[in-house]
Order: sequence, then structure tokens, then C-alpha cells
Amino acid sequence: SRSIRLAVIPGDGIGQEVVAQGLKVLTAVLPQDVKLETKEYDLGARRWHATGETLPDEELASLKQHDAILLGAIGDPSVPSGVLERGLLLKLRFAFDHFVNLRPSKLFPNTSTPLAGRPDIDFVVVREGTEGPYTGNGGSLRTGTPAEVATEVSLNTAYGVERVVRDAYERANARPRKKLTLVHKNNVLVYAGHMWKNIFDKVGQEYPEVTTDYLHVDAATIFFVTQPERFDVIVTDNLFGDILTDLAAAVTGGIGLAASGNINPTGEFPSMFEPVHGSAPDIAGSGKADPTATILSVALLLRHLGYAPQAARIEEAVAADLEARGEAPRSTDEIGDALAARVAG
Amino acid sequence: SRSIRLAVIPGDGIGQEVVAQGLKVLTAVLPQDVKLETKEYDLGARRWHATGETLPDEELASLKQHDAILLGAIGDPSVPSGVLERGLLLKLRFAFDHFVNLRPSKLFPNTSTPLAGRPDIDFVVVREGTEGPYTGNGGSLRTGTPAEVATEVSLNTAYGVERVVRDAYERANARPRKKLTLVHKNNVLVYAGHMWKNIFDKVGQEYPEVTTDYLHVDAATIFFVTQPERFDVIVTDNLFGDILTDLAAAVTGGIGLAASGNINPTGEFPSMFEPVHGSAPDIAGSGKADPTATILSVALLLRHLGYAPQAARIEEAVAADLEARGEAPRSTDEIGDALAARVAG
Ligand SMILES: CC(C)[C@H](C(=O)O)[C@@H](O)C(=O)O
Ligand SMILES: CC(C)[C@H](C(=O)O)[C@@H](O)C(=O)O
Repeated sequence: SRSIRLAVIPGDGIGQEVVAQGLKVLTAVLPQDVKLETKEYDLGARRWHATGETLPDEELASLKQHDAILLGAIGDPSVPSGVLERGLLLKLRFAFDHFVNLRPSKLFPNTSTPLAGRPDIDFVVVREGTEGPYTGNGGSLRTGTPAEVATEVSLNTAYGVERVVRDAYERANARPRKKLTLVHKNNVLVYAGHMWKNIFDKVGQEYPEVTTDYLHVDAATIFFVTQPERFDVIVTDNLFGDILTDLAAAVTGGIGLAASGNINPTGEFPSMFEPVHGSAPDIAGSGKADPTATILSVALLLRHLGYAPQAARIEEAVAADLEARGEAPRSTDEIGDALAARVAG
Repeated sequence: SRSIRLAVIPGDGIGQEVVAQGLKVLTAVLPQDVKLETKEYDLGARRWHATGETLPDEELASLKQHDAILLGAIGDPSVPSGVLERGLLLKLRFAFDHFVNLRPSKLFPNTSTPLAGRPDIDFVVVREGTEGPYTGNGGSLRTGTPAEVATEVSLNTAYGVERVVRDAYERANARPRKKLTLVHKNNVLVYAGHMWKNIFDKVGQEYPEVTTDYLHVDAATIFFVTQPERFDVIVTDNLFGDILTDLAAAVTGGIGLAASGNINPTGEFPSMFEPVHGSAPDIAGSGKADPTATILSVALLLRHLGYAPQAARIEEAVAADLEARGEAPRSTDEIGDALAARVAG
């Protein structure tokens, strides 16, 4: 009989609430014969205040013993900016070599977009997850004085770029439109940008059916609002991917619906699934958080673990739920219950 | 009697056409007693193909002898990406210490925005222009091999950050809403990000009337489309400013209306004014280019040189022209003529 060993990191703010709904829907959708074992980890602001720890080695080793990780949200105003992001969230992405940060963007029916004319939006961003300006490489000299100098170094390797570019070609090749757009800024960031572009072109020769395109990141943001339907699969670096996927979420029904997977495609390490949104401390505990992004992240998790029909059931349930919903705001729990009922039904 | 010594760099693609209209409107708006001397520079793709030069030292020295520079657009597909951008455009910005890259965003009447509900948009981005990831610092090792490593280094100094932050506070303080938002990514780029934030907070103590706010760049893109009316003045680094101002242009009537000034506030070097758009080689020579962004850049130029009433006349003419225009597309020339007539009238 099959089983899923799932590590759960609710994290901060609304993390706890949305993860509870994600687990509810996961339980409801799984076939009877699949045994779900979950282990919850106390990581985030509370832990840091109590012990000063962000992600101790033994927790990392324990997390590694799982098939996947479900994460809620990390970050709290009571903790200096960067401590939990670098010490916990990014540490997980780097330690578990999550080089594919997968972020689908789809405009569901009956959702509001700030864009006039409701364009058809259905693309996926493959954001590199283990390199670029996110490596923590940099420093500051004479910190806090008028003579301070601070650097941030973007590190890029052919090894790291080629594997994520190849993954993106595979995904594009498997989609009906078979289109892949590289986004970078190779007219300014010429070293990293040219390496990305050269590798993109080289790997492309292996995928003759995929149509390719290159956009500078600034121009890409224009198309995200004027012509988002032009995109199918986008591959880009860690920082550009961070920026573009928040913008993508904004134009497709909001950050309450944006799911993501931090994927280690080799299977050497557990992949980690999380909503794109943050911990939203302003609404934490109020029951106002929309758990849909987490529930859609559970769908990505299921697909990654080989449960494609169950993943599709969740995505169809979300579409149907959005289509059917009324005007009245619903609580976190109510949305979770509605989706659990749909996937079970 | 007064005079303006203006250096003109039409550059590539539509640069020539839009600059001609900018000069037409400039001539029409200037008081009779102001003598306008222009000198045109042959710089850009043509020059590079002919001589291999992008910006020779003697041209730089000659450009320096001017009160201001009007630039059309730089870049052509026949030149490898980065050669003209780094060798000419960025070289000018760095050599002339254009540390304030000023980019106003305003939704004019009767212009189309991709945003539903036509929010009121009227903000200005103060983009740092001489530091950050634009310094050209970086390199690549084992270029073109599977073992390649490429770096890009973002250089930031307290000196450079403080002067641009102070400029932004001054601008915010002079506007009715007096609001200044810092955009960075200090939860990941902790060295540069914390320096920016600390200097932002420190300088803010001198401007008690200015309300301040901090946003991560990814979150900022969300507000650009969901709530652009929340912004008044934004200060940000070179790369984030590049990305945000294209997005800002997209939501405020398009890149055909976005003006910019590369300003050296000390007056030690000539400031340079240019439309935010590129050289658009696909429509070059067709008379389809909208010269409005260049003409609005001329308004910024005039304000910088102390001709505030004339600058306002141009901006009012653009607003009136957009309000009055019909459905039929107009040529580059027709728009220039219409605006020249309005400012003269
Ligand atoms: C919280 C932050 C470190 C993170 C990132 O920048 O990757 C977030 O914005 C995201 O997109 O997952
Ligand atoms: C052409 C390019 C170098 C330039 C930049 O990145 O600054 C442009 O995008 C701009 O915004 O002026």
C-alpha cells in the first residue's frame, strides 16, 4: 500500500490557518489506500524568539526524511527583515536544491483581475531557485558609517542555468502551445545575461518544436499587463522570477490564489510547496485568509508525487468553487470545507 | 540674453524621428529672447558599425560643454546586446554622474490603460542612476563551457544612496501629498537592502512632514496594478527602478508617453533627457512612433534649466492634445505639429 510522508511547516501569521485547510483538502482527496503521515515542525518567528534558532541541522536532517514539505508562510514584523527569510525559507530552498521554483498563473472564472477586458491568462513561470542574487553572497564594509559600501553578488553557473532551462523546455514541450520565453536583462547584466541566453539557445536545439522568445525583464512587465495571453512558459532567474510572479499573481485574481512548488526534480531531496503570499500578520487569526493558494499548492504537491488525477480534482474543485461563489466573503474554514467537500464528492 | 546649449543624440531606430519633434516643440515654446544652440552627435549603431566606436573621449568632452542633452533611443538588433547600452547610454549616465533618474508617471485624460476602473495615477519614481547592479562589475570564467561561472555585482555606497534618497525626500516634501516609498528587497538582499533602509530612515528625520513607507519590490509590482494611486514619490535602486518604471509606463497610457530625466543635480555635468521607450526598430522610419514621450522629456529638460512655465505649457499641451484627439491614428509629424501649435498659441 502506498504512503506519503509529509513534513508540515505552518510558519508564521496566517501560515497555520491556511496549512490546516491544505491538509483538510489533501486528506479528502487522497485515495483510501494511501496512508498519509504528517509531521509538524515548529519553525518561524515563535521558535526564533524562544531559542534564537531558525533551522537547526537536526531539523533539516529530519525534514529530509520526507516525501515532500508543505509550508504556510514565513516572516513576522517582530523579527528583523531577512533573518527568517534567509535563515529558514531560503535555507530550505538551497539545502534541498530546489532549483525549479514552479509558479503557474491562471485566471480562473469569476475572479477579479485589475486588468480591463479579462485576457485569457494561463502561463507558468519556471523561476531558478538556487542561484542568482539569492545566494547571500555579498557584504558590507564600514557598516552604518557615511563611508559604507555594500555589495550583493549574483552567482550564476552553467550547471545551474542549464538544468533549469532544460526543465522549462520539457514543460513547454508538454504543453499545447509549446512556447518558451526567456526573461533576463542581458543588455545590462551582460555576464550572467549572455550566459543565460547562450544556454537557452543551445538547449533549444534539442527542442525543435518549442517556439522561443527573449524579453528583457522591464519589457516583460509591460506585457504582463498589456498582453499576458502571449505567455506560455517563462524561464528566468531567481530575482526576476520573484518579481514577475508577484505581478503575475496580481493580474490573475490576486495573491490569494497563487501557488508554488520549490522542486528538486532529481528526487534527491524533498520538494516543498507553498503559497506565493506571505504571512500577512495584519489578518492572522481573523479567519480572513484565503486558503486557496495553499490548496492549489497541495495540487502541485500531489502532481509531483505522482497523484495527477487527485491534483486535477483539486484544480477543478477550485475552478468550480470560484465559479459558484456568491458575493459574501467566506472564512478560511468555509473555503477549506467547500473545497474538501468538492474533492471528496 | 539667455541661451541654451543643447547636445542632441538622436541615436537609433525611431530616435531620429522623435527627437526632431522634441526640438520642434522646444523651439516653439522658448521665449524669443532665449537663444537655442544645438549640436547633433552621430552616436549609436551606425557609428559603431562604421568605426567600432561607441562613445569616444573627445565626444564625451564635447558633450560636457552643454547645458543639457536630448537623447532619442539607443540600441539596434544588428549590434550585440549590451554593446551600445553599456558603451554609450550607461557610459553617459555614469560619466555625467546622473544619479537621479527621474521618471514621472501620470495617467492623462483620454488615454488607455490596461487597468480596469481607471485609477488616478500621479507618482514619480526617483531611480538611482549610478550604482547598484548597473556598474558593470562582474565577469565570467570558463565562458561558453559547461563549467562557466558568471557573476554580476551590485555596488552600493552610503554616499550614493544618501544623495538620491535626499533628493527624493526633497521632491516628496515639495508635493501636496508628501509621501515617499522606498522600494528594495531587504529581506533577501540584506547588505544593500539594510543600508538603503537605514539611510532612508536616517534622512527621513530631517523631513518630519513626509510620510514614509517601505515595500519589497515584488509587493510593489502588485500595488502598481491594484492600487497605483497609493504612490506619490518612490525611491529605489537602479535595477528595481528600471523594472518598475516600465510597468508604470504600461499602466499609464503606455510607453509612448513615458518621459525621463537623467539628472545631475549638482550641475557639475549636463543632465540628459530621454523617452523611457527604446529604439523600436520594427517601426523606425514608418512615421508611426509617438513623439509624446520625447516631448514630455523636453518639458523635464526645461524645468531642470529653470524654464518652469514653459515646461508646464508643454505638459498642459500634451494633456489637451490627448483629450482632444480623435480615433484616427496620427503620424509622428502630426503629433509634433499639433503640440508645437498648442505651446506656441
Ligand atoms: C519571502 C521571500 C524571501 C520570498 C522570495 O523572495 O523568494 C517570497 O517573496 C517568494 O516569492 O517566495
Ligand atoms: C536600454 C537600457 C540599458 C535602459 C536601462 O536598463 O536603464 C532602459 O531600459 C531604460 O530604462 O532606460
